[in-house]
This record gives sequence, C-alpha cells and structure tokens, in this order.
Amino acid sequence: MVLVLWSQRVAQAFTSKASRAAPFVRPAALASSVMLRRPLSATKAPEEIKTNAGSAETPQNLPDMDEIVSLCKRRGIIFPSSDIYNGYAGFFDYGPLGVELKKNLKDAWWKHFVTQREDVVGLDSSIIHNPTTWKSSGHLDGFSDPMVDCKETKLRFRADQIFFSPVVLEEDSSIVGYVCVQEANDEDMVKEATKQANVILKEKGMKGTKIKAFQFREVVEATEEEMSQIPSPASGKPTLTMPRDFNLMFETKVGATVDSDNVAYLRPETAQGIFINFKNVLGTSRQKIPFGIAQMGKAFRNEITPRNFIFRSREFEQMEVEYFIPPGDDVWPEYHQKWIDASKEFLSDVVGLREDLMGWDVHKGDKLAHYAQACTDVTFKFPFGEQELMGIAARGNYDLTQHTEGSGKNLEYYDEQTKERYIPHCIEPSLGVDRLMLAVICSAYAEDEVGGEKRSLLKFNPRIAPIKAAIFPLLKNKEQLVRVARDLFKQLSQRYNVMYDAAGAIGRRYRRADEVGIPFCITVDFETIEDNAGVTIRDRDSTEQIRLPIDEVIPYLSKAIDGY
Amino acid sequence: MVLVLWSQRVAQAFTSKASRAAPFVRPAALASSVMLRRPLSATKAPEEIKTNAGSAETPQNLPDMDEIVSLCKRRGIIFPSSDIYNGYAGFFDYGPLGVELKKNLKDAWWKHFVTQREDVVGLDSSIIHNPTTWKSSGHLDGFSDPMVDCKETKLRFRADQIFFSPVVLEEDSSIVGYVCVQEANDEDMVKEATKQANVILKEKGMKGTKIKAFQFREVVEATEEEMSQIPSPASGKPTLTMPRDFNLMFETKVGATVDSDNVAYLRPETAQGIFINFKNVLGTSRQKIPFGIAQMGKAFRNEITPRNFIFRSREFEQMEVEYFIPPGDDVWPEYHQKWIDASKEFLSDVVGLREDLMGWDVHKGDKLAHYAQACTDVTFKFPFGEQELMGIAARGNYDLTQHTEGSGKNLEYYDEQTKERYIPHCIEPSLGVDRLMLAVICSAYAEDEVGGEKRSLLKFNPRIAPIKAAIFPLLKNKEQLVRVARDLFKQLSQRYNVMYDAAGAIGRRYRRADEVGIPFCITVDFETIEDNAGVTIRDRDSTEQIRLPIDEVIPYLSKAIDGY
Repeated sequence: MVLVLWSQRVAQAFTSKASRAAPFVRPAALASSVMLRRPLSATKAPEEIKTNAGSAETPQNLPDMDEIVSLCKRRGIIFPSSDIYNGYAGFFDYGPLGVELKKNLKDAWWKHFVTQREDVVGLDSSIIHNPTTWKSSGHLDGFSDPMVDCKETKLRFRADQIFFSPVVLEEDSSIVGYVCVQEANDEDMVKEATKQANVILKEKGMKGTKIKAFQFREVVEATEEEMSQIPSPASGKPTLTMPRDFNLMFETKVGATVDSDNVAYLRPETAQGIFINFKNVLGTSRQKIPFGIAQMGKAFRNEITPRNFIFRSREFEQMEVEYFIPPGDDVWPEYHQKWIDASKEFLSDVVGLREDLMGWDVHKGDKLAHYAQACTDVTFKFPFGEQELMGIAARGNYDLTQHTEGSGKNLEYYDEQTKERYIPHCIEPSLGVDRLMLAVICSAYAEDEVGGEKRSLLKFNPRIAPIKAAIFPLLKNKEQLVRVARDLFKQLSQRYNVMYDAAGAIGRRYRRADEVGIPFCITVDFETIEDNAGVTIRDRDSTEQIRLPIDEVIPYLSKAIDGY
Repeated sequence: MVLVLWSQRVAQAFTSKASRAAPFVRPAALASSVMLRRPLSATKAPEEIKTNAGSAETPQNLPDMDEIVSLCKRRGIIFPSSDIYNGYAGFFDYGPLGVELKKNLKDAWWKHFVTQREDVVGLDSSIIHNPTTWKSSGHLDGFSDPMVDCKETKLRFRADQIFFSPVVLEEDSSIVGYVCVQEANDEDMVKEATKQANVILKEKGMKGTKIKAFQFREVVEATEEEMSQIPSPASGKPTLTMPRDFNLMFETKVGATVDSDNVAYLRPETAQGIFINFKNVLGTSRQKIPFGIAQMGKAFRNEITPRNFIFRSREFEQMEVEYFIPPGDDVWPEYHQKWIDASKEFLSDVVGLREDLMGWDVHKGDKLAHYAQACTDVTFKFPFGEQELMGIAARGNYDLTQHTEGSGKNLEYYDEQTKERYIPHCIEPSLGVDRLMLAVICSAYAEDEVGGEKRSLLKFNPRIAPIKAAIFPLLKNKEQLVRVARDLFKQLSQRYNVMYDAAGAIGRRYRRADEVGIPFCITVDFETIEDNAGVTIRDRDSTEQIRLPIDEVIPYLSKAIDGY
C-alpha cells in the first residue's frame, strides 16, 4: 500500500517540469535523496501515513536502532564523528573493529567484482572533479531538495518535510486559518495541529467550535496565497518563503583567484568519475565491450535531515560498477539479469546477509527515470523499515551521451567485429558501503543462551569478520602453553587479523570473542603440549569444539575464511 | 648547503610572531606546505639558487618527470582528473593499474603496521569533522600561505613564490625602480628581471646604464614602501596588495541554515581524526600505553601552486600512526628510533624502494616545531629532486593538550600500574600514499636489453605488483593448452590479481607483461600437456625460466608474494 502511494508520488516528481531534472530522477541518486524518503500522499488522512517508506512488516529477531547504535559505540565499531566536540550531524567515525569490518567488505566486493572477473577493471577517481562534470551530468541543475526559509528566525526547512493543513469548520466548511507541523509520527502531528488550531479558534473567539479532520499536505505544494497564511514552525507566524531548490552537493572553492569562478563540488556519487574516464580506461586496459569499470570511494551529500544512523549520512562510501554493453532493446535484459544474480550471490554467499531480511523491489515504469530501462533494488529489513540496500539499473546511454555533449569529446566505441560505432549503454550495480555495514551488523546481531547463561554475539561470516581467530593459552602463566600459543599467533597473523588473549578464565575469553564476532577460538591446552594432541578450535555460533593438529589449523581456517 | 639555507629560513618562520602559528610549524603539515618548497634565502645571489629544495645530487637511472607522467597515462596508472574536461589542476585519477598498485601499498602498510602488530589498532574517521577540531588544533588560525592580490587583474600570487629586486645603479648605488619575477629557474629569473630593468632604464632615459646584480627577495618580505613600487607580474604596474594569509583548508558549508555558522572544512591531514578519537578508541580496544592508532584516508589542501604531478596535489591520501607513549625526556627517544626502524623496514623490504634513491634528513633544533622533540624524514630522490617521502616525528603531548583545552574533555590516561595520570605523548610516522606511489614507480622504472632488443619494464616488488602473474597458453587455438591454462588461471585468481593472455606471439606477451610490471609469467606449453612436465615460470627481471609442476605453482607464488 505504502509502496503504491510512493510510486504515484515519484511518478509525479518525474513528470513535473520543475528543476528537479535528470539526475534527480536518476535511480541511484534518487534512491538516496528521494525514493527512500517518506512517501506522503497529498490527500491521505493521517492514519494511512506509515512511519517508514517501503516497510512492509517488522523484521523478526532484530534489535532496535538504539541498541545497534549503542552496541556499535561500545564495541568500537562506529562512533559519532568528533565525539569530544559533541559530534557532527550526519558524520561518523569507524573504530578499530568497524574499520576492519568495512575493509573486509570492500576487499570482498573488489575481489568478487574486479580481480576475480576478467571483464571488470578498477578505477579510483578524485572526489573533486572539474566542476563541468556536474553541469553535464545534470547534478548542478537538478540534484536538489525544495527548501523554505523562515524569514524571521533564519531557520530553513525541507519543504517536503513540513506539513500544513487548513483549519476547516465542520459547520460551514469555511477556512479559519492554517496549521503547520514538522514531520513526526501521526499521533504527534495531529496533537500538535490540534493545539495550533485551538489557538486560532481562541483568537477568533470560537473556542470549542468543531473542525473537520486535518488534510495534511507538504508545504512544497502550497500556493502563494496559502503560504502567506501558513505559520512557520519556527516563528509561529506566516514568515516562510516559497520553496526554493537547495542543491545537495557540497560546494567548495579551489585555487586562489578572487572571483567566484573557482567553485567546485564534492562528488555526490562515484559513478560520474567512471563515465568521464571511459575513454582513458578503454584506451589503456585492453578491454572490449562488454566490460565494466568499478570504483569504491567516498561521496558527499548535504542532506538536510541526515537520519537512521549510517543509513543516510552526509559523508558515505559507495561501491559502483558501470558495465558497458552494446545498444539494443534485446541486449540489456540479459546483462541486467546477470548483474542482479551476481549481486545477490555477493550479498548472500560472500557477505552472508540473512536471507529472511533481504527483499527485492522491481521498479515499474512510472518509478523509473525517463531514460532508464529498468531498475531492481535489493532491499533490507532494517530496524527502521525495509529500505534500499543496493540498486541494479539499466541506464541506457544517458550518461555517456551527456558527457559527450558537455565535453565535445567523442565517447563512442568502435566495435572491430561489426565495424559499428556507438555510445555504449550500461548496467549499474550500486551499493552503499555504510548501508551494507549496517545490514551486516543487523544480520550478525544475535543473542542466545549457552550453559544457562545469556550470550550476546555477532555472527559475522568468517570471510568478512573483523577478527578471524583468537588464540588462547589455557593459562597465561604456564610458559609452555604461552610459547606454543604465541608461535601459532605469529604464524596466523601473517595471514589474518587475529587476536592473542591470555587474560581471565577461558569462558570469559570465549564471551569476549563472541561479542566482537570472532568466528574461531583456538586454545592451546595441556593436551596440546603433553600429548601432542593439537589444539581445540571452537566454533562461535555452535560453540562446538574440535581438536586439530597444529599444522592443520591454517588449512582449516583458509577453507572457512577464503574458501580454498 | 641548500639544506642549511633552508633550515635558516624555516627557523625564521618558526620564530616569527606572524599568524603562521602552531599547525604551520607542525612538521607533518609543514612538510607539505612549506618545508619542501623552494628554500630561497633573502640575500643569496641567483647562482646559488638551486631548482629543487633539499636536492643533493641528480639521481642516477631515473627517467625525467615528463616520461613518468606519460608512462602513467599510457599504462593506465594515473590520469589527469576530469581529462575529458581538460583536467583540473592538482587532482588526479588512478586508472586500472594504478588503483591496484595503490590498493596493494595501502594493504601492505595496514598489514605491516596494524594487523600484524598487537599494539596498533585502526581507525577511519570522517573527512569532514566538527569544525571546532580545527580551531583547537590551530589549523584554522595558522595553516596558511601568504598571498598577494593584483588589484587590477584580480589574479592572486603566493607571496613567497614571486621575487622582487631593486634596480640599483652601479655608479652611485641609487635605486631607480623595482623588478618582480615569478619563481623559475635562475637563468630565466635573471633574464626576465634584466628585461624589466631595461624598460625602466629606457623610460628614465638611462638606456645602457650599468646596474648591480639583482638581489632577489620574496615579495612576502617587502615593506609597504617597497610594495608601492613593485610591479605586479600580472599588470606590470604596482598594483599588488600587501601579503595576506590564505588558509589552505578547503571550506564548505554543512546543513541548510541561512547564516554562516555552518562553515566546515575538508581535513588537511588525517592525524587530528586520531587525536579526537583517542578516548573512544582507548575505551573500546583493550589497549594500554604504549599503543598506536593508525589511519589511512583522503586529505585536502588548497595548494595555490600544485606541482610535480602527484607529489603535491590538492587531494591526496595519507597513512598515519599516532603512537601514544608515557611522558618523559628519557622515554620518547627509544620509541622514536623504533618507528624509524620500522618505517625503513617497510619502505625497503615490503615496498621495495631502491636503496640508492632513499635518504634521511634528521631535523636539527631550529628546524623543529617549538613543541616537537625530534623529527626524522625519509627522503627520496625524485626526478625533480630529493624530497620528503615520510616523516617520523616525536610530537610531545601537544595535540592531545590542545584538544583537551578545546573540548573541555579530560584526555588523560590512567596508568593502572604506576597509578599515574598523564596526557600521553606521541610518535607520529606519517606517509603520503601518492608520494609513495610516485617513489614506487620511479624505483620500478627500468629499461634494459633482452636478446638485442630494448625492453621497458616496471620492476615492482611482487608483494605490491598490481598484477601478480600472467598465465599464457603457448597457442590460443590449441584446446588442451587453453584448458590447462584456464584452469590454472581460475585457481590463481581466487588468491591473486592475475591476467590471462592468449593473444600474439609469446615474446610479445612477455613484453606486455613486463611493461605493466607483472613479476611472473606462467606458460602452459606442449611439454605441460604431453610430458606432464609442468609449466614454465619466467622471472620478469632476470627473464630466466624455471619449470614447476602445476601443484607447486601456488606455493611458489605464495612464497614470493606473501613471504610464507
């Protein structure tokens, strides 16, 4: 139901002639700037408003977001940025455990989609491009949110996140004023609006008069006549400007000229860096179409209301491939499907996301950008609702065409076999690193009971676990145990990020390892040194132990972690 | 000699009371913003000016920079950023080969200094911090270059990169005017100044009058009186303003308030992100002093004159450790030396830089920031001169003290054994990824002759080589050869970035592999399939071949690449 409203709404945005042009309707960009925002329909009654876009049902066995945020800080996974300066909204720092997890996810993606494939090569373009890039791509004109300013308080609001309603008398349907509330849950919105309406009625000497149910609309839809009466949420008086587009790109100035022609932008996506390098890569990599260019890296969007922890932040990281293919309506569907399959394989088998939390959202015609042929999202049931994790779009040749026009350079491909020249089309699988991190943490989060005691653990897939194994000497003051354990630790640390821990009872060490998601605990005990009986390896999830000769430990771990 | 001048000059900057305050004299920051800039003394005659700071002698067997830049583009290592839009000064994109090389360098650093050490943990803080960070660290007030504006043309110049001299008559030592030239080689500077002086003499009807040798000084040192007569390099008239500080940090605005209290900065170094996370990391990582926090990531400096390819760019990447130690004058020297040794080991043994191109520069007292205890640079003989590659500084407790004051938070460490509380001191090994890339490429660049033919190759250490091995079937249309080669390729690609190449004569394939620095070429030939004689492995540098059974290929490569 919510999805239907949402698609209507997006369709509306697409067909509008407002300046929210091309890139705004670009699925990947859109995904972050609009699609996942609250899909409020203009005419819906409050009880039909759901708190989260696209959320179908509440996921099972998931902690709430507060618990996730708290756990991430407690375990050194994610801290608020600049915490000692009371943070900075929309920015986050990855701690010792988080940085390893993130690195493993990125490495796994790179290996899966770049080095293990013969038809994809990598790229690392700069964050700040020649600003003409964003003129050509359309971001400069269209990558924006509508904002209203409060002329009195100088505060600014997303015009699609504050809502107004006329106050309509039940008796004769006359309008006696307007209320304006900020986005909140339905109940709070109605409560706040009722309060405002009562003030209006009181001022007009109509206290107690019955009014009709509120018909909330986004302030972005207000006429000038209405706006002149809508009270600002900041001043309480009609001091709002009409909506203006506010570009989501962070601006900066490069160089030292005095005039203003040195404005540049932090990239809002990594994809354009790929398109503008198409010719250089083609000319140096010996690739032929079909082939892809992959890139991982930071991107920045000046979100007015960053939210949901690292799901929508202002500084984030993307992993994108542009896979270039020949033109033709019969060509792209096969490649699109292949990339959907490959993405699914990566998320399930390599990353190990919980299958029950993943979903699919195939965009229908009215949800697509005008030039796009298809877009399929992989969704994930986050604690705050089901949201896009990854998008796989068939984008036609829109971007290369735009850059051909913008640069005056010929970006055509010459097919030596068919002797044809064409601007390649492309398939774009696009994944957010931070979103993936959050999905991984939600997937891994678990609580169970071991030996009658409650246990908290993180079930990271061994492949992406930040720490692969912990090595314990049974006792820390028994030199022989320690020597063997240290030797093994040294050997393993050449290959993997492993931990040596000799402090406390063995049970407590197991718990500590479980809490940070270490898949294997290897213990050197008296049987190891006295009976040459090898070491024990305990599995984090089952807590079962096996005994292995020391020289079989590496092959065992290699199989579990690397798959060979 | 040049070094002496340079140290005098830097000492001068240090003792000056100008607003070039704390961070400006911070060795790591300084290294990029001042120390490596041309050390011109105020009173030196032109013939004593050397083209490059710190360059002792011209390195042997090094190509010139043009050849390096051209090779990097040709082989897909580094492209100018936004090339189709005619580039963007100070920004670069890493191509398919470059991105792999960069990734390998970063991975090797991370492994060497983080995962293989028990006393260092990682961090990944955001590029945009709460701006108070830069107030506390001193960057906001002091991280600047002196600039002059030309009032007529609106062009801006680094005041320490344009030089003026009075035109002094030999006859009576009277000054008849001023000349002003931009930084160039000595000869060009004198030529240009002579031209300007002749115009002055002609205007004054003194054509042919003898003048004394020019005494060039930086415009930053001009008095107001002098400045009113110094011609602008842009207008030729005295239209320059007095020097003003120009902060090197890129500014942006975060959020959507209308007023200007939302200014933020792109970090000019990764180190501060470590300091402000000290308490969070300490509280979550079970580390005790001494321990270190490591970070890799992008940093940005609005260099007025980016130069020397990726050596001084506006967007670059750093790898830094802050290693926290107890206070005490007898404590830091040992740790400092350990980090110098560890850095040397990394650069020589892991990265494989040419020993003959590496050097050391131990900063003496007058070259040190006022709070620093010691700083040792690892230098590298680039084609444009010997320059800092890496700095290892003993920084005292300056930064944590600044952030304690700035945040009002207690950043002390409590030593459980000694029951003491203190603000830790630190050792800071700081390395630029892009500079390291350039040093690696210069080290690897080689030409020789093989079988009477000239050969161009890149001698990358196997550990960091972008592509580890190439697998060739001797003939591409012989199914049995192809099958074995593809099987081997598939096996190897699980572990390494490897290449399959079946096109052209085997000799040509060897050359192609040499050009991109692939250390091992593995050929499947008729002996492989007919006599079960294994494959040949050819060494890139010696071009020697050995024959190995197929199942010994992985152990062989593993030993050479991973060291185990």
